[in-house]
Amino acid sequence: MKVEIITIGDEILIGQIVDTNSAWMASQLHEIGIEVAQVSSISDNKKHILDALGQALERADVVLITGGLGPTKDDITKLTLAEYFEDELEFRPEVFEHVKGLFDSLNIPMPEVNREQAMLPSKAKHLMNEKGTAPGMWFEDKGKIVVSMPGVPFEMKYLMTEEILPRLSEKTDSTELVYKTILTQGIGESGLMEHIGGWEDDLLNSGLGLAWLPSMGRVKLRVSGKGDNRIELETKIQKQVDLLKSIIPQYFVGEDVDEIEIAVANLLIEKGWTVSTAESCTGGYVAHRLTSISGSSAYFEGSVVSYSNRIKETVLGVSWESLKKHGAVSKQVVEEMVEGVKQKFDTDCSIATSGIAGPTGGTKEKPVGTVWIAVSTPSGTISQCFRFGKDRDKNIVRSAQTGLRMLQKEILKHS
Amino acid sequence: MKVEIITIGDEILIGQIVDTNSAWMASQLHEIGIEVAQVSSISDNKKHILDALGQALERADVVLITGGLGPTKDDITKLTLAEYFEDELEFRPEVFEHVKGLFDSLNIPMPEVNREQAMLPSKAKHLMNEKGTAPGMWFEDKGKIVVSMPGVPFEMKYLMTEEILPRLSEKTDSTELVYKTILTQGIGESGLMEHIGGWEDDLLNSGLGLAWLPSMGRVKLRVSGKGDNRIELETKIQKQVDLLKSIIPQYFVGEDVDEIEIAVANLLIEKGWTVSTAESCTGGYVAHRLTSISGSSAYFEGSVVSYSNRIKETVLGVSWESLKKHGAVSKQVVEEMVEGVKQKFDTDCSIATSGIAGPTGGTKEKPVGTVWIAVSTPSGTISQCFRFGKDRDKNIVRSAQTGLRMLQKEILKHS
Repeated sequence: MKVEIITIGDEILIGQIVDTNSAWMASQLHEIGIEVAQVSSISDNKKHILDALGQALERADVVLITGGLGPTKDDITKLTLAEYFEDELEFRPEVFEHVKGLFDSLNIPMPEVNREQAMLPSKAKHLMNEKGTAPGMWFEDKGKIVVSMPGVPFEMKYLMTEEILPRLSEKTDSTELVYKTILTQGIGESGLMEHIGGWEDDLLNSGLGLAWLPSMGRVKLRVSGKGDNRIELETKIQKQVDLLKSIIPQYFVGEDVDEIEIAVANLLIEKGWTVSTAESCTGGYVAHRLTSISGSSAYFEGSVVSYSNRIKETVLGVSWESLKKHGAVSKQVVEEMVEGVKQKFDTDCSIATSGIAGPTGGTKEKPVGTVWIAVSTPSGTISQCFRFGKDRDKNIVRSAQTGLRMLQKEILKHS
Repeated sequence: MKVEIITIGDEILIGQIVDTNSAWMASQLHEIGIEVAQVSSISDNKKHILDALGQALERADVVLITGGLGPTKDDITKLTLAEYFEDELEFRPEVFEHVKGLFDSLNIPMPEVNREQAMLPSKAKHLMNEKGTAPGMWFEDKGKIVVSMPGVPFEMKYLMTEEILPRLSEKTDSTELVYKTILTQGIGESGLMEHIGGWEDDLLNSGLGLAWLPSMGRVKLRVSGKGDNRIELETKIQKQVDLLKSIIPQYFVGEDVDEIEIAVANLLIEKGWTVSTAESCTGGYVAHRLTSISGSSAYFEGSVVSYSNRIKETVLGVSWESLKKHGAVSKQVVEEMVEGVKQKFDTDCSIATSGIAGPTGGTKEKPVGTVWIAVSTPSGTISQCFRFGKDRDKNIVRSAQTGLRMLQKEILKHS
């Protein structure tokens, strides 16, 4: 089965957004063994959509279209698809009820324009979009499949995961597909490659697959296997994962955890411990990551974001002498911060950061990217200095992830 | 002049990498008034390259190709282009010297495979790639232009900046392209549509363009115009933007500001004021947004994330009576939080949030999505209750953006 992806909308063509949707869709399709032949980004224009769809259907069996489905005037995908399939729009009560329900739950009267969203081509099967107002549409005609979905990433991902991938998977073959994801942190893609190149070769030779999924400050590895026997596959994959863990224990954060904060949260809950943070260069981002998890009030007490030296001194109790003698970005100060917040908030653990996120504020001794991170647990405090890069956003993310990883390692020593 | 971009390589089609090259190229072309008609990602396959190139040249005047030029894959793109232009490869001494020089400078003997890189189609103009070994190639034939360059981002960017953009710029007509972006907040895409549908019709009838760019909790509108006279266009667009502002003053955050925190930061700097935050349901995210801007230490002092009632009481000085009588998610408590942090951190302004981000923790009286937000300025404190939705991440983002917007409005009253 060959698939093509068409993204509709001018934002990509004028370079205002990067097309991350297609990469995500392609990786999901690749995982279930479906080949993507081409990805095309085109403008929100009827003739262009018709041409691109026609050409794609010449090459592929399935065309997945994203975008061009919002309630406003620059969205013409639905009418164009109706024309392509020589079809008429009809009113779908279930779509109308769903859209109205979304507005009702927000206590907002439904704008007239959203009523239009309940009009679908009569030949389209409706795919319920629980995450938004624009419905998904599934057309089958002359052995080919055309699917239209909204371009908003989390709506598209919902429809792909819940509706489209299962249907396409059914149409492929009955093979079992098993995967496991490993989260690694503290090393880049090429560094990791040097450590585990031999492991990867053996893994590939044994008939399993490996996908590298790097993102800011971390690399996920996804091991996948196809076959008839699920139990056998799972055992085979777990053996490889255990082997990997023994090769890179220092970088191995966990199995099937999406983010480091989830690994930390699970440990804190297991121990019945609480945590607080004292943040300078991360500006509240560690707290944000910890509280992005539902139920975080079970272990997270709170934070002090001490952006100025005055707040470090008055709120966290960092000594004026330390600030004067060592500067805010120092072992001395970050340890006083981590202990100050732990005491003040009366928590079992704490994380503190102090660094130069950039792009300004660097000196010769402490260039942009210099970050001191401390963590404290019931058995004491440790701290470490890092040299990240020059990019402000990346420095904030990497500092937060590194602090969380340090805390995870320290808590694990207690088990 | 219409341009199409073709990226060659399987990494995009299996979702291993996100195509950031095309977005960068499109934004650069857009800036000099060149329209990108389509972006296509295709596989490293001769027939597919020939088909895609042929189709692109039917729609566009210029086709920019990236990728498929590394020393190992060299032959496919280069030989395919030679075939397309009915051409032969020839040896180019200047390319050979350049590649050899790169290896010499690293004290590495040049691998035999790199010698091939000096073979170029005879009809191709060579574009010197100072950043790597794969040469850029420029073909002109029957009034159409085809350019091939490597897919490595910094090599591509070098060739685009130094060679390709200047040449294309010379060949374009002198049409001016002007645009202005408006940030709106507090209303969804369809609600906004109801307010400004008439304005949009008039704008489109006057020959200007409008793009709707919705994302979480906000909608950007981009007004664009093409013509011969830049000053006239700018005046015409500004008139429409001013008109828009008078139609939706309550939702109009600003012109050419990307995010609400930038608008707030600009105002704080203008006034010489400082800000702090006291955050419950946003868990540090307001502070994170404020500190994501370089130079934020000029106005941001810090925050208290008070996730538990105990911290609200002990660190922020919220009274136990208020917490007991009204609950943490209440007007009383959020106002004590905003005033507590303002006083403790000695700032001119402050923002506080207290709500139920969800998905758990809701009650009948205070369902998930209920958020109290308060802001304080030198002239006093105001607060408001919102009912956002059921999604945790969205509730956090919308609460933060709404708090920042409330602060912007309050500060503007001081001018």
